[in-house]
Amino acid sequence: MATETFDKQKTIDLRKKHVGPSCKVFFSHDPIKIVRARGQYMYNEKDERYLDCINNVAHVGHCHPDVVEAGAKQMELLNTNSRFLHDNLVLYAQRLQATLPEKLSVCYFVNSGSEANDLALRMAWQYTGHKDIITLENAYHGHVSSLIDISPYKFHQMVGAKQSQHVHVALSPDIYRGKYREDHPDPATAYADNVKDIIEDAHGKGRTIAAFIAESLQSCGGQVIPPAGYFQKVAQHVRKAGGIVIADEVQVGFGRVGSHFWGFQLQGEDFVPDIVTMGKPIGNGHPMSCVITSREIAEGFMSSGMEYFNTFGGNPVSCAIGLAVLDVIEKEDLQGNALKTGGYLTTLLENLKERHPLVGDVRGRGLFVGVELVKDQKKRTPATAEAQDVIYRLKEHRILLSADGPHRNVLKFKPPMCFSEEDAELAVEKIDQILTDLERALNLSMPESTISENGHCKRKEPSEEINHVHASNGSSHKQTNTHQHINKNKRIRT
Amino acid sequence: MATETFDKQKTIDLRKKHVGPSCKVFFSHDPIKIVRARGQYMYNEKDERYLDCINNVAHVGHCHPDVVEAGAKQMELLNTNSRFLHDNLVLYAQRLQATLPEKLSVCYFVNSGSEANDLALRMAWQYTGHKDIITLENAYHGHVSSLIDISPYKFHQMVGAKQSQHVHVALSPDIYRGKYREDHPDPATAYADNVKDIIEDAHGKGRTIAAFIAESLQSCGGQVIPPAGYFQKVAQHVRKAGGIVIADEVQVGFGRVGSHFWGFQLQGEDFVPDIVTMGKPIGNGHPMSCVITSREIAEGFMSSGMEYFNTFGGNPVSCAIGLAVLDVIEKEDLQGNALKTGGYLTTLLENLKERHPLVGDVRGRGLFVGVELVKDQKKRTPATAEAQDVIYRLKEHRILLSADGPHRNVLKFKPPMCFSEEDAELAVEKIDQILTDLERALNLSMPESTISENGHCKRKEPSEEINHVHASNGSSHKQTNTHQHINKNKRIRT
Repeated sequence: MATETFDKQKTIDLRKKHVGPSCKVFFSHDPIKIVRARGQYMYNEKDERYLDCINNVAHVGHCHPDVVEAGAKQMELLNTNSRFLHDNLVLYAQRLQATLPEKLSVCYFVNSGSEANDLALRMAWQYTGHKDIITLENAYHGHVSSLIDISPYKFHQMVGAKQSQHVHVALSPDIYRGKYREDHPDPATAYADNVKDIIEDAHGKGRTIAAFIAESLQSCGGQVIPPAGYFQKVAQHVRKAGGIVIADEVQVGFGRVGSHFWGFQLQGEDFVPDIVTMGKPIGNGHPMSCVITSREIAEGFMSSGMEYFNTFGGNPVSCAIGLAVLDVIEKEDLQGNALKTGGYLTTLLENLKERHPLVGDVRGRGLFVGVELVKDQKKRTPATAEAQDVIYRLKEHRILLSADGPHRNVLKFKPPMCFSEEDAELAVEKIDQILTDLERALNLSMPESTISENGHCKRKEPSEEINHVHASNGSSHKQTNTHQHINKNKRIRT
Repeated sequence: MATETFDKQKTIDLRKKHVGPSCKVFFSHDPIKIVRARGQYMYNEKDERYLDCINNVAHVGHCHPDVVEAGAKQMELLNTNSRFLHDNLVLYAQRLQATLPEKLSVCYFVNSGSEANDLALRMAWQYTGHKDIITLENAYHGHVSSLIDISPYKFHQMVGAKQSQHVHVALSPDIYRGKYREDHPDPATAYADNVKDIIEDAHGKGRTIAAFIAESLQSCGGQVIPPAGYFQKVAQHVRKAGGIVIADEVQVGFGRVGSHFWGFQLQGEDFVPDIVTMGKPIGNGHPMSCVITSREIAEGFMSSGMEYFNTFGGNPVSCAIGLAVLDVIEKEDLQGNALKTGGYLTTLLENLKERHPLVGDVRGRGLFVGVELVKDQKKRTPATAEAQDVIYRLKEHRILLSADGPHRNVLKFKPPMCFSEEDAELAVEKIDQILTDLERALNLSMPESTISENGHCKRKEPSEEINHVHASNGSSHKQTNTHQHINKNKRIRT
């Protein structure tokens, strides 16, 4: 067991003294001190166990021994920059490329999702010779200045913030709360047409489009799953304008969506982005990330004559860790587990929706799941305070969950990929209890009419042709043809 | 001994296929494959040893066992984000703060020098409410888009690049090649007045100054050591205009300059920057960095209302590694070694200057040393091709050195801090031979008149009051009152 250097109050005091006040802790009134973690569990200074439903960075499980060993071994041997040849770099590039469509073959290794997205913008600007960027409502793409500009999630937090002239904000393709909803005959086209309108408007002002950037599934934006075909249509409009399409997979990549390795693949094989950016889960917590693009864009980027050098990017240690993460995903079939356990979790949450008026929508793919809380199912009034309440009460039960989205009313599940069915049951059971208490206090009950009616969101699958919903043993699981090798009784490492 | 996965040609082929063509290797016609490293030595796939004179990132020596152990142990225990309390974070912040003037007390942990400098700019913009940035000629501050804008070293490489309107480029305070030279009565004031002129000019155009940013000693810019008092005077002008001063210590910090822990301290105790950014050596190769500022600026930054969150920044592994690096610097008195061995190296190089017409200037502080090669000592014509030749021939002797600066004619020493006197002798002996050969081929000889005359640059020390030049045993060592505890016979770990 890990020991403490300072008691918790001293840690808090020192943090107040020496760490930037803009850097927030979870549960600021009573923050958590974590001293060790393993798998999907974190332990505080009293060795009390927390179930971790939020750390998508600890992708293959906190402190996975294979990843630790790979990192430690390489650290002992060599850690230097990519101006020297090293096998780990090329091996890793080869392995990453193999997870992607052929066209995406050229890698740039950097240190964070922010560095990756900034580099993607630099490439877009250089390759297209254009300036303007189209981003989505509520999007978050990183913390460096160029990305704050294209992150409404961030710049809307700022007192007196102004949107940069070169940034255009498109409608979030959210069929629960957005402009076009589940009852719209073709939300994919309607949302894509909004991008088309933005482009035309920009052209009218003499502006030019460099790129459209979006998370394949919006995370901070509220666990939004774009309707099938949306990205294909957007890509058509953007490319026609001479721009490129950047898929930000920082939050959702590496098998989390279960049926596919990358989130953008949910849209179907006919959609291939021009640049894919990676981050968070890529190194299980080790600071690293990657940008992958086509040969054509890579050559275009080089034509500026400017070298690209990143001091730490692609060093042998980061690459060894990245390789180990890919190995574990494969060896433990964590993508299969995301599909199976994620499907089970979604089903349990959908069952909650049938009984709880506070639950407006349940949406998810694999182990990327959102539960949108509302005070009124018809009006879909965000239940912001209630979502906070759920989070705080779960913490008392030692379950870590967060609430996000523009109204902070979407409970976000994005646990380590070794999350088990028992974990899902525990979390949902506690949420059930908490919602029951809250609804009693608020005097809320299920309106008779909504149970089999419009109030509930019926959403279409992104690729109906490859996803089926199976009902078995009273619970529904989402499965795909490409991933039927689910090991039913597989025990998850703890 | 480490083994290879691919033979060297296959590594090169895969790199061409899968790694961005803008990412260059050293010695592109015959790159080096390094498979392991230790201390100041790197080993290729044939286990041939290279003396490393350039990797300032491997600050306490490649793969230092204490650093490796600290990293491996913490990786096994916990690696998560800074939204949970952790002792490593506050301990490390406390330790870093203790190396700096009291005023610089608030830390932000990020992943790279680029992230650090970008954050410093964001702070400057938010705190001052101003927009314009003053940077130096030939400066390099990082690879994200906001930093390319303020890095003439980079944007001058670009075909058809335009300087951003909010960026002003001040004269580099280079007393060898710059506008005001060693024969100027007061180059510090003259160079600082240039900054003053820029501010007045900007004000005349209705613009406002957010910050002046400079490396405490310019590295890529050509190992430039600003004259004493320069930063004090610049700070006066900048602060009067409502701007702040950012000292970029990414390349030169952590004891490299020998007499002090930070490069800016060479200017004297009366100079304290408003923000200090760190990077490269901070984690001995681990991707991490830090921004430290005053409470006032930190509060100003927070006033925007925007949270600052960095996924990997300040994680327990990075902090454990950072702490281990500080411990090793202290335990092995590497700052003392930088002073002693750096002084010895500089003396050996100064001796070369007496005999070699190609050597125009030798300048350095600790283990940060530059040798400027010229074809004509009076005209100071840059010997660019010759510098490249030296580098390539040294490589044949398995010595790694680089040439940089605006004319790529400055040989740059910035070795791991465990560099020994024997290493210095070996490198200088080989440079001596190579220069002799080159001069013979070029038919160059020492002009009689320059030996005791003007052609040689007599530079003033940045803080004459604390630095003395001692001549002993025919070699001159720079020492300071604060660092006289040099362990003369200390053996350096290999």
